[in-house]
Amino acid sequence: MIDQTLLPERLVERDLRTLEESCDAIRRLVVRGAPAIGVAGAMALVVSLMPFAGLPRADFLERARAHAARLAATRPTAVNLSWALQRLIRRVDDMADAPGDQLGAIRAEATAILEEDRAMCRRIGEYGLTLMPAGPAEAHVLTHCNAGALATSGIGTALAPVYIAAERGRAVSVIVGETRPVLQGARLTAWELSRASIPVTVVTDSAVASLMRAGRIDLVIVGADRIAANGDTANKVGTYALAVLARAHGISFHVAAPTSTFDPRLADGTEIVIEQRERAEVAGAPGALAVPPEAEVENPAFDVTPAGLITSVISDRGVHRPPFDFHVS
Amino acid sequence: MIDQTLLPERLVERDLRTLEESCDAIRRLVVRGAPAIGVAGAMALVVSLMPFAGLPRADFLERARAHAARLAATRPTAVNLSWALQRLIRRVDDMADAPGDQLGAIRAEATAILEEDRAMCRRIGEYGLTLMPAGPAEAHVLTHCNAGALATSGIGTALAPVYIAAERGRAVSVIVGETRPVLQGARLTAWELSRASIPVTVVTDSAVASLMRAGRIDLVIVGADRIAANGDTANKVGTYALAVLARAHGISFHVAAPTSTFDPRLADGTEIVIEQRERAEVAGAPGALAVPPEAEVENPAFDVTPAGLITSVISDRGVHRPPFDFHVS
Repeated sequence: MIDQTLLPERLVERDLRTLEESCDAIRRLVVRGAPAIGVAGAMALVVSLMPFAGLPRADFLERARAHAARLAATRPTAVNLSWALQRLIRRVDDMADAPGDQLGAIRAEATAILEEDRAMCRRIGEYGLTLMPAGPAEAHVLTHCNAGALATSGIGTALAPVYIAAERGRAVSVIVGETRPVLQGARLTAWELSRASIPVTVVTDSAVASLMRAGRIDLVIVGADRIAANGDTANKVGTYALAVLARAHGISFHVAAPTSTFDPRLADGTEIVIEQRERAEVAGAPGALAVPPEAEVENPAFDVTPAGLITSVISDRGVHRPPFDFHVS
Repeated sequence: MIDQTLLPERLVERDLRTLEESCDAIRRLVVRGAPAIGVAGAMALVVSLMPFAGLPRADFLERARAHAARLAATRPTAVNLSWALQRLIRRVDDMADAPGDQLGAIRAEATAILEEDRAMCRRIGEYGLTLMPAGPAEAHVLTHCNAGALATSGIGTALAPVYIAAERGRAVSVIVGETRPVLQGARLTAWELSRASIPVTVVTDSAVASLMRAGRIDLVIVGADRIAANGDTANKVGTYALAVLARAHGISFHVAAPTSTFDPRLADGTEIVIEQRERAEVAGAPGALAVPPEAEVENPAFDVTPAGLITSVISDRGVHRPPFDFHVS
């Protein structure tokens, strides 16, 4: 996989051969983005089980469950990871006891997840395109963090409508906040859109409000890490601020995410666990210290955007409008 | 003066002996904060004119005007700089033609500006204290950037009520957004409050919205670089976002600033020129590049908060409530 921690300065691909390497890569954000983490977790589970292909089914299953638990613990907020891992476990659990077939079965399931992810991106892009302003004027899309090709196996979720618009020759440009503390907007969204020759402008997260006030944003499209049954949406920290600001400026605010992101077990966003990440991401390391050691730092990775601030959720099944009800299976 | 670009890692004081050194220091944010820039500009003008003390009054005045113009051009948004420089020029302009006295006169005027600045801070602090929640529970103040001691000659503007509350043994803590791109909140506000043993927590700018929603902010107090007659306020970029977010969460939003920040020549905020700073502040330098070269960057240093989002303006003359009318001289 591409080591996203080195972008935009260096494009380096890493081979992950062990469970430890894969867990470390997911934890360190070498791969990130909810759908990509799901695919990466599935592939990592397959690779980690290759030495155990000859085990009896029960032993293989036990081993697979142990590996899956370790992978799932690396990023607790992203629902796609545990969703993909459980799908692989279930595939082995459901099959008859035929030695040697277990590895082939979960490899096939992981490949299916990859292919479904690519198709999902295109469907989200088509649905999202229906929400972009019609007419010849350039559409100005604000996004946050990176819910693009780097976050999926395909053309992304929030950026999928942008890619399809550009494919069809429509004028479209993207504004993205840099997305502190890890700068996925500045580093990743700006990199992949520049590579695709789609105009992109980076601003600090707190400068976005002035652009909204100046009429320079037509609509907001963001990704999601987890969506509760009522539509409350967990996504990269700062998403909630954009939703409040968009509402205050009369700008529509859309969430683009695969249905695998929906978590109907959660009634609303209050049940979503928010990952707190380490101090150094904000405070810096000695030599480039941004915060003195005496001061506290809080570094939540995500926030929850209440359903009431969301104009639509764009999934691979269509454009969902409020009131949301994601209990459908 | 303290070189604020090196905080919090190193406390270094710089002697500025020439006009060029002073202009460079103000431009590079060695000194920043509207009141501090005013005092620094005044002192810099005095120092730069020391070699010309013996000139006839008209020649001295011509030289002073030329130096003042160069100093004023270093930071176009801060009104205090040109206000302080004009005050010094006027002092020389008004005096009788007594050779050798011009330098003493402008030195006296610059010292008066310094002393008035200190007294102004304490008055703002006393007025601001009346807006803090009463009772024994800890008050949680959100601020942005640095409008503290480092931004003035005294105890600051936005932070003055916090310092006075702490002096009087009241429980108070401060939350500050890191304030991208130059991180004055993380580096400077966290440093000076930590030194004063006042609890301070740093979060990314975009995490503030979630803290508001969680009920962890009692009130917002920010500084100002320029305030139009109608109350529209230019301050560090991101201030406008905080004002919109505070309003959405029912949190009061106060601007603390000396009356020298009021600019009654401007009817409203649309007339305020917003300084655009260099790309590298956001995009980074090669070796730590955050934005690929192909992507655009916009880096406005300030934004304008409309008067309608401001609960009060706390100046050295009192607490001003809407509707604002800063035409008073």
